[in-house]
Amino acid sequence: MQTFNVQGMSCGHCVKAITEAVQAKDPAAQVQIDLGARTVQVQSSLSVDAVLQAIKEEGYEASPA
Amino acid sequence: MQTFNVQGMSCGHCVKAITEAVQAKDPAAQVQIDLGARTVQVQSSLSVDAVLQAIKEEGYEASPA
Repeated sequence: MQTFNVQGMSCGHCVKAITEAVQAKDPAAQVQIDLGARTVQVQSSLSVDAVLQAIKEEGYEASPA
Repeated sequence: MQTFNVQGMSCGHCVKAITEAVQAKDPAAQVQIDLGARTVQVQSSLSVDAVLQAIKEEGYEASPA
């Protein structure tokens, strides 16, 4: 399980956009997002860098937690 | 021009969702959304009720301004 701090997530659309962006790179990825804590947890075969890139491509600032 | 007060809009995804919901009912509709002011302005052939319904179907609370 990888955990990332992500800024700018504000609503269900953001949750959906980030989840789909990660799952576009690994369809089997499990993604849990906590808007209040501003965290994204990912269980997948992807590298930390690949997940970070997917999130950033959606327009969010992200860093490993 | 109709103006609506809309609660819960928080980001560009919300802007896109509401704009597309209104334009699904009138493709020629012009939609201007001010997140800070929480307002949606619509120039279209739609009735006030039709616009309200489109916005509410996206999950937002809305009322004529």
